[in-house]
This record gives sequence, C-alpha cells and structure tokens, in this order.
Amino acid sequence: MTSTPIADLWTTLPGGAGPRPEAAYRLLAAAVEAFAERGYHATTTRDIATAAGMSPAALYIHYPSKAALLAEISRAGHAATLELVRAAAGAEGGPVERMRRLVEDFTSWHAQGRTVGRVVNYELHALPAEDYAVVAGLRLDIEREVSGIIADGLAAGLFEVAEVKTAARAVTSLGIDVSRWYTGRSSESPQELGRRYGELVLRMLGARP
Amino acid sequence: MTSTPIADLWTTLPGGAGPRPEAAYRLLAAAVEAFAERGYHATTTRDIATAAGMSPAALYIHYPSKAALLAEISRAGHAATLELVRAAAGAEGGPVERMRRLVEDFTSWHAQGRTVGRVVNYELHALPAEDYAVVAGLRLDIEREVSGIIADGLAAGLFEVAEVKTAARAVTSLGIDVSRWYTGRSSESPQELGRRYGELVLRMLGARP
Repeated sequence: MTSTPIADLWTTLPGGAGPRPEAAYRLLAAAVEAFAERGYHATTTRDIATAAGMSPAALYIHYPSKAALLAEISRAGHAATLELVRAAAGAEGGPVERMRRLVEDFTSWHAQGRTVGRVVNYELHALPAEDYAVVAGLRLDIEREVSGIIADGLAAGLFEVAEVKTAARAVTSLGIDVSRWYTGRSSESPQELGRRYGELVLRMLGARP
Repeated sequence: MTSTPIADLWTTLPGGAGPRPEAAYRLLAAAVEAFAERGYHATTTRDIATAAGMSPAALYIHYPSKAALLAEISRAGHAATLELVRAAAGAEGGPVERMRRLVEDFTSWHAQGRTVGRVVNYELHALPAEDYAVVAGLRLDIEREVSGIIADGLAAGLFEVAEVKTAARAVTSLGIDVSRWYTGRSSESPQELGRRYGELVLRMLGARP
C-alpha cells in the first residue's frame, strides 16, 4: 500500500491550494519525502531539487526557499484536514453519526496520508512565524469543530464527558498519532482502522448505544 | 513547569541504565534537547559537546558516536517506560484499577518527560539496527502489558472491546502523543491530564461504571 500521492492533496481535496505546475508537484513530493525521512533541518534545497530531478536553480523558480516549501505543505495539509472535518461536522444526522464520520475520515486520512501527516504535525516548529500563525489558526478551527460536535452531543444528552476540551483533544490526538505508527504493513486498512477508531471514540464520549 | 531532568531517567526510574559520570549526564541532556529541537540528523556531535560545555574530544571519552547517544537515550527511555507499565500491570486490584493506574502514569510520564518522549518516539528510524531491535522488543513488551490487562478485563466481563490489539494500540497511542502536544503552558498538570485520560480510556474500553 502506498501513501497518498502529494498531488492529490492539491487537487482532490477542496482545501488544497489549487493546481500547480507539474514541476511544483514533483518538488512538493520530494520535499515531503525528505522532511518525513530525515527531518526539515537536515534536508537541503539541493536534496529536494535532486530528488525531483531538477537543478537547485530550477527549484527557485517555484519556491524561494526550503521554508516556502514547508509552508505550502503545512498550509495545504491543514486546510485539507479542516475541510474533511467540516464536511463531517456539517453532514446530516445527529452528533453520534457526525462524530463517527469525522473519526473515520480523520483516522483513515492520517493512515493514508501518513507521510504528509508526519511533516505537518512534527515540523510545526520550523515554520516561519507568519505561516505558523495561519496553521495554528487552522488547527484551532479543527479542534473547534470537534468540540462543537461533542457539545451538541452533550446538550442532546447523547454524550457524557467531564471536559469537552480534553475529550476533543483526545479525539484529534488519536487520529494524528496514526501518522506516526501506521505503516503499509499494518494489519488494518486505513478504512478498517477508521471504522474501529470510530467505535472506540464514541464509547470514549459515553455515547448511548 | 520544566520537563523531567534527564538524570532522573537514569537514577530514579528502575529501568534507567544506572549511574553515569556527571559529564555523561550533561551530554545526554544536551543530546536530548538538540535531537528534540532540530532532529537527530541535523544535530552534530560538536553541537552536543558545545551545549554540554565540552570539546568534541571529551564527548568521545563517553560515547563513541552520535548514534551511541541516541541509542542510550532510547534504550533507557523505553526501559523506564516499560518499568512504569509493568508496575501498574502488576499492582493490586482488578483490571479496572490496574488500567486506570497504567494510563495515569503513562500519560503524566509523557507530559512530564515530553522532551525525552519526542526523541524516543520520533527518532526510532535513526537507531542502529541492533539498538532498534532492542527497542522494538521493549515496545512490544509495553503493548503486551496493555493488551494483557484488556484481556483480563474482557475475561472478567469488566471490559467490552471488539479487538484487543486495536484497543491496546489506541491506549498507548493516546499517551505517546501527549509528548507531541503537551507544553508547559498546557492548562492541565501532567497528573490532572493523567486522571482525565484514565477516565476516558476506561470508558473507551467499555468499563462498567
């Protein structure tokens, strides 16, 4: 099983940053692989250009710096995740159905897109301040959507949790950590893992069966 | 709030590798900070020696390589975690009480020792093969202890989960991810977070109230 091609992030998901030239996709894909494998700080623009089959000079036509590549990956990855979360939160059905869909989609997304997931979740500290502010805002929006469903469920007497914020944090944390441990050799498919995590989370939130 | 001093890993926890010369502690502490901050690959032995107030030559008296430092940090961190897990699993009380203690201790440990936690969980791929094998064994032992309590709870009719392995993975995953997001500015103390996570996990496992 391969992880999601980077181009999908920019084209199939509504949060993607819109079509880019083919060369830019190759650079983004090479940057994601290199950042996930060796870390942002140990990767050079030359490493990325070479992996993309280009010269460093050709890289600079598309991105002014290594930080600009990280920023685009992080912004697009977070925007795509927020879209997915909003789609689940705004779907038909009650809090139980919406939370189940959210966890299923959030989990399988982090399993399938684990390489991108590692970069966007573990290289936040390397973002330039302005990009960090944008990404922090997107992360807050994601947490708010999750908290919103939990609050709806509480109000409807369908969930039972002591602290909404801690519960919301646990829900997103479970999904994010999938990108750390999931591999192509994992026994569960991304979809099956999502289904199982959906069950576990609903129980964690005290959902009435 | 500061994270756990590195020396504590080697002295106060039974899984620690035993006392080291004071200079070795300084090197280990500097290596943990540098690996957590910039990543293993972007850190040089010179960076570590300088941060510890030593020459590179003095570093080599204690550790033959950067990899040897990472290996000691990772082995000791995992051994300490396994001890903590075993202490909870072997404590008095039934599966509910033992799982509660395990999650409380595992969670607060990853909050308090988050800097070490980041290194031992996110730099696994950089370990030399022999050390990786040892650490993978320790990780498997940790999962087995967690699975064991869940299986005990199922057998006693106290828990209700569809797949023990997935549930055990979710329990450890929640705790490990704390080292990613927890900061000294987090509103919950490590102990309070542990208490809340203990409640959430017991619910996730279908524990009868």
